[in-house]
Amino acid sequence: MTDLSAFIEHTLLKQDATNTELDKLFQQALQYHFLGVCIAPCYVKIAKEYLKNSNIKVVTVIGFPLGYNRSDVKAFEAQKAIEDGADEIDMVADVSYLKNKNWDAYLEDIEAVKKACGQTPLKVIIETDLLSKDEIEKAALLCVEGKADFVKTSTGFVKNGVGAKAEDVALISKIVKPYGLKVKASGGIKTKEQALELIKAGADRLGTSSGPSLMD
Amino acid sequence: MTDLSAFIEHTLLKQDATNTELDKLFQQALQYHFLGVCIAPCYVKIAKEYLKNSNIKVVTVIGFPLGYNRSDVKAFEAQKAIEDGADEIDMVADVSYLKNKNWDAYLEDIEAVKKACGQTPLKVIIETDLLSKDEIEKAALLCVEGKADFVKTSTGFVKNGVGAKAEDVALISKIVKPYGLKVKASGGIKTKEQALELIKAGADRLGTSSGPSLMD
Repeated sequence: MTDLSAFIEHTLLKQDATNTELDKLFQQALQYHFLGVCIAPCYVKIAKEYLKNSNIKVVTVIGFPLGYNRSDVKAFEAQKAIEDGADEIDMVADVSYLKNKNWDAYLEDIEAVKKACGQTPLKVIIETDLLSKDEIEKAALLCVEGKADFVKTSTGFVKNGVGAKAEDVALISKIVKPYGLKVKASGGIKTKEQALELIKAGADRLGTSSGPSLMD
Repeated sequence: MTDLSAFIEHTLLKQDATNTELDKLFQQALQYHFLGVCIAPCYVKIAKEYLKNSNIKVVTVIGFPLGYNRSDVKAFEAQKAIEDGADEIDMVADVSYLKNKNWDAYLEDIEAVKKACGQTPLKVIIETDLLSKDEIEKAALLCVEGKADFVKTSTGFVKNGVGAKAEDVALISKIVKPYGLKVKASGGIKTKEQALELIKAGADRLGTSSGPSLMD
């Protein structure tokens, strides 16, 4: 049987999160032995302090959720997050560069953040809800070229977006896994059935705010 | 009769905007003599180049739309935007600091970006959709204390959010105008009636992607 907890990054990314909600997230991560927590950049230090006696990874988001910041700003944000103790970096790629077929800029954006990350694993969020199949393929290939460690499907912040879909995870997996990259499915994961289907399709990680209910 | 064009910042902030859509935005800004355009940080340079022979202001957004970036990252992003030619800076304040009554952090965040802005006008987005009346009052007072130039109501990116409301604009105006700050209403402004109502309530600026249809 699949141990879901080893896949889950317990996620709280709403902008009006209270300290009480953050504490609850950290407690649940400890209680359920989740792989990690995914929280806002301004709370990385607090998360690292709270979880210092555990092996739970502190993951944060860069250029989130729209991804249209300057590349050097994303790189600086990643650098500061790592200084604060982030174990992994989830950056949002620039969808408009992809739509404009400005692949050089799309790639250079990933490379700039990768350089700032050094040995810290980098996930690149491509925002599948906004992409055609061809665009998903192209984005995944550019993640390979940019030496990302993971391709991540979604921010969860697209209006009327669906988030992680098994068919997208399968498509991305087919492209990137031969090169050693992993896949994080995220956005709209609310049931155990969905979680297991995404893992079957190739997901190595699940980003979800419904972790505890997936475990019960 | 009110000349609406002098109030309007013609806005395109979706993350999958194409070059064609951007060009159209700039052309419309010229055609309708809008006060400014409001676009993503990665397109400030292009906007400035396109509009160099006009007096249309180039406005961009910082820490947008969630506002939970580190303050030094927001400050760096503002600095880079100004280097790229931004005439005004619209930053998102950190709603979670307000919810946690961490007013020092809320203020210091504004002050950090204000310092980076120097003489460039700073608008602070407080995201009224997520705030109680008391919180709107407190946020507005902290904008005064942080020496912001404008208080701006909304990002337009809150799920199920309404955006600018006349009653909120009136409340903010009452608090900040005695100190010389102005008010920008933004989010969900789609009709001329709404626009005029917001101006009557105290709005000095309107952020909208419906500018041309407000003018016709």
